Amino acid sequence: MKNIFGYSPSPITLKRLAGCLCQLLQLPASKYPHISSTQLARLTGGKPSRLRQDFHHFGGFGQPGHPYEVPVLIEELKRIFGLERRINLLICGAGSMAETILSYKTLKDLDIKVTGVFDFAVKRQGKRCAGFKVMSAAQAGDFLKSNPAHIGVICGSEVERAVDFFNANGIKFIWNLSLADAPAPKGMMVHNANLLAGLLTLIYKINDT
Amino acid sequence: MKNIFGYSPSPITLKRLAGCLCQLLQLPASKYPHISSTQLARLTGGKPSRLRQDFHHFGGFGQPGHPYEVPVLIEELKRIFGLERRINLLICGAGSMAETILSYKTLKDLDIKVTGVFDFAVKRQGKRCAGFKVMSAAQAGDFLKSNPAHIGVICGSEVERAVDFFNANGIKFIWNLSLADAPAPKGMMVHNANLLAGLLTLIYKINDT
Repeated sequence: MKNIFGYSPSPITLKRLAGCLCQLLQLPASKYPHISSTQLARLTGGKPSRLRQDFHHFGGFGQPGHPYEVPVLIEELKRIFGLERRINLLICGAGSMAETILSYKTLKDLDIKVTGVFDFAVKRQGKRCAGFKVMSAAQAGDFLKSNPAHIGVICGSEVERAVDFFNANGIKFIWNLSLADAPAPKGMMVHNANLLAGLLTLIYKINDT
Repeated sequence: MKNIFGYSPSPITLKRLAGCLCQLLQLPASKYPHISSTQLARLTGGKPSRLRQDFHHFGGFGQPGHPYEVPVLIEELKRIFGLERRINLLICGAGSMAETILSYKTLKDLDIKVTGVFDFAVKRQGKRCAGFKVMSAAQAGDFLKSNPAHIGVICGSEVERAVDFFNANGIKFIWNLSLADAPAPKGMMVHNANLLAGLLTLIYKINDT
């Protein structure tokens, strides 16, 4: 969403703002009615001045020299990401990663809703995954017609097949939580979480130090 | 690990190399005895010339104009990350994220071993998590004395407490898979996966396009 200042944040800035939002949502409201940029930077691991600058690009969210009101900051950050309307997710792959995503209370706080779960493996279809009855791909295709989703989530290992399914069913945004990166077909956008890359980076540093 | 060319890869390069390694390990060996930089770039979503350049910094791994031998490429990439010796992980938080990590066959392929799982929640202690008997923090501290770990993995939500535990027990490298970023205490290194940041970036893009 274009903000009123016409400012386009970089991917790094977006990640930092997302980190702030996640952190703020985990804070006990009673303990943190207000938060200073110094406190928030300590929690997220960045610099206070950098955060103030980030916020400044979107209007500041407070008065200089005063701590931010946490509920206000949360609402402003949600607005930046376009979280004023509900976002629907459809999950492919009914395993423990799907259960992890479904366990996130933060998603509910952000009005992000998982509408359904499907799996290519016949043995998983019809079973339960964190309260959802697991659909087949054919069922998921039908389901999408009456329950549109904004984002397809890949939690299983058949990544290419999942990308093809979402592409064929008009879902252009993919959150790929599998271990293998998926290239984005034309007109689609894929975010590859690639968890293992983070672990390998740490292992590299163990040997580097 | 310093390579013989004295080359220090950037975090972005490391992530790309890690992506290649993960991708190569998922490929069916019978179908891919060899792979060209073009094929590999198509799978990982980058540019062939960029990959060749990355590899070149570490010795090239093949002859110009010929595809790479996949087993050779895997071994060379493992060597870059220092995966010639076993790496041990200790997991904090016995939930579905821990089960996800424990289900990764790729970890075994890389000789990365989870040695144990512990949890701060009494109700989870003594229960099973993907074959592991869940320890208390006190038990995990004792366990570490005879079973040293290189990396602490945070799968639960009590992030600060987990970081303190690992710090107190001499584990300096943390793979944080919780939703909240953790700042690294002095002398420690934390990789914050922050999965939700990726999702929020996608949601931003939905509204931006």
